[in-house]
Amino acid sequence: MPASLPPADSGALRRDRLRGVLREAHPDVEALLVTDLVNVRYLSGFTGSNGAVLIWVDGDARADRIGTDGRYTVQVGEQAGDLELVGARDVAAALLESAAADGAGRIAIEADAMTVAQHAALRASVPEVALVAATGLVEGLRVVKDDGEVGAIAAACAAADAALADLVAAGTIAPGRTERQVARALEWAMYDHGADAVAFETIVAAGANSAVPHHRPTSAVLAAGDFVKIDFGAVVGGYHSDMTRTYVLGPAQPWQREIYEVVAAAATAGRQAATAGTASADVDGAARQVIVDAGYGDQFVHGLGHGVGLQIHEAPPVGSTATGTLLGGAVVTVEPGVYLPGRGGVRIEDTVVVSDGPCRILTATDRTFTVLD
Amino acid sequence: MPASLPPADSGALRRDRLRGVLREAHPDVEALLVTDLVNVRYLSGFTGSNGAVLIWVDGDARADRIGTDGRYTVQVGEQAGDLELVGARDVAAALLESAAADGAGRIAIEADAMTVAQHAALRASVPEVALVAATGLVEGLRVVKDDGEVGAIAAACAAADAALADLVAAGTIAPGRTERQVARALEWAMYDHGADAVAFETIVAAGANSAVPHHRPTSAVLAAGDFVKIDFGAVVGGYHSDMTRTYVLGPAQPWQREIYEVVAAAATAGRQAATAGTASADVDGAARQVIVDAGYGDQFVHGLGHGVGLQIHEAPPVGSTATGTLLGGAVVTVEPGVYLPGRGGVRIEDTVVVSDGPCRILTATDRTFTVLD
Repeated sequence: MPASLPPADSGALRRDRLRGVLREAHPDVEALLVTDLVNVRYLSGFTGSNGAVLIWVDGDARADRIGTDGRYTVQVGEQAGDLELVGARDVAAALLESAAADGAGRIAIEADAMTVAQHAALRASVPEVALVAATGLVEGLRVVKDDGEVGAIAAACAAADAALADLVAAGTIAPGRTERQVARALEWAMYDHGADAVAFETIVAAGANSAVPHHRPTSAVLAAGDFVKIDFGAVVGGYHSDMTRTYVLGPAQPWQREIYEVVAAAATAGRQAATAGTASADVDGAARQVIVDAGYGDQFVHGLGHGVGLQIHEAPPVGSTATGTLLGGAVVTVEPGVYLPGRGGVRIEDTVVVSDGPCRILTATDRTFTVLD
Repeated sequence: MPASLPPADSGALRRDRLRGVLREAHPDVEALLVTDLVNVRYLSGFTGSNGAVLIWVDGDARADRIGTDGRYTVQVGEQAGDLELVGARDVAAALLESAAADGAGRIAIEADAMTVAQHAALRASVPEVALVAATGLVEGLRVVKDDGEVGAIAAACAAADAALADLVAAGTIAPGRTERQVARALEWAMYDHGADAVAFETIVAAGANSAVPHHRPTSAVLAAGDFVKIDFGAVVGGYHSDMTRTYVLGPAQPWQREIYEVVAAAATAGRQAATAGTASADVDGAARQVIVDAGYGDQFVHGLGHGVGLQIHEAPPVGSTATGTLLGGAVVTVEPGVYLPGRGGVRIEDTVVVSDGPCRILTATDRTFTVLD
């Protein structure tokens, strides 16, 4: 992560915010057992592969606890030294037992992360504690990004922008290359521009493959006249970027320009609608209406976007069936598409930060109709 | 996947085997709802990101079903056209409802895959069906690989062998390079040798970092005298390889040769012990005893190995607390290590196929003490 990023909020501050939402959602519990590893990272900074955190509702009275095993003793001290350490392989059971030893009788668990088998095992091993199913508490806090988080996502977006610019400048996206070769070159270039990892398996879809929304790169060879749809992202400091651009390998045909301009207009409408306080479904609707009006409504087969952060897909969803409103500080994608099976498809996607005014677009690559010769 | 791979068993054959273990483990249920996506792939061939399969105990009477959504209509027809398709976003609920409509009253669910929240939602939406928690049924079948599966793992191992040979020949593993540069070069070379993907985040750990069992590559620079521990793998046709080699950047010191030879002897003992019918704990013990006898028992801080297949870590575990015996046809790793904190560590890992006689070693890279100059 670049040294110049603004600081992120501390784990202690995030845990205090969590106490507030926990108290409101489950006034009858004494603590929340956090077992989702992304949430563990968000609340503690710990990035190991085995860990859980116990957050007390009354944070002043008792220290919050983190559990991990001997492989991570050094790492957990460096990353989460402000938490009381409980060493164990079965971290969930160990934290519950430690809470029970302190007299806790009702503890909330993350029902979206814990499996039925883990739940049954915990009930059997710590029968004196009642487990209360909680959902979405930490995920809800994670929606609004702090300056450090936005800085990391922006750095990831910049690495992706620079990588794609390299490929365009070098003429790598050209007839004769395979989808896989382009995908690998793009991933390589992201690393060169500071990515710690790729955000997800890069999508490079040429010709008729571009009509498949989530095509995986194959040995298909790019050819003159193809749409080439490229959906990719970088990870910096744990945070993801997400961008799609669609090019035409010349010569371009009129139907290609037509659906491109429809999608571009929908993307503009979606970005303009993405302001704080707007219903997520209305943001989707603003972009979708452009496509429906152009007669391609049935060819826009997915939602407009999703939250981006420590995960490539996280809250909030931005689609026609989404129920919430956008919050200022949320980072979401805006990614309309039109897909004509057997012919080709276009998607234009940007990662943006929501605010009271116009959204801040973090992905900067040009999105006008571009023919690569 | 190379065209020369032997054929894998069909999904129909695998589903028939599953009926047998299901009937034995849960004689009171009418079907198993499979929601783990790796198990869905194993039983049907379907590789989409949203899917579930319903397997009837009485497979002759009713067709097994697969659920997925509209994004995958074409794909599911190609990959799993022998299953009856139920189209829905919420595939688990849709399959349960379809089973209830056919009069099913008790259905087993995968308790290791289903979350507490999913379970509660299913109970609410299809209250007429009793859900029975099942664990490990498909995972148990997946332990013994068929010829097609072994062929794919062998191809992945070959890609990894060839990639590492490229780096050694090119002098890439040398003072002045960073851990990340070596990791990226190795991943690039695996793609060049036919990998579809990398099996997991490549570990390149130099100097004192080699003493951290699961170190993530950093910008640390390789230096003369370092151990360089490299743990990596390829994916071919969905199947993983897993191999670790540890080199010394010259000049080597006596302590380095000493712990290397201990680990090499332990690895040999482990591979020799890995025969069908041997208790997994005894395989671990055979390798561990060598390390204990050399006085480094406390520095071998993890189990000896794990199963490898559609997942990089799957059944069976091979460790001191494992309870089963090795089955012929299982593919497992043998990976003893000795880690001296602050100084350096050695791990030597191979992927092997268990049989009645000596195991077949799929990872072929030389494992004698090697100093790279």
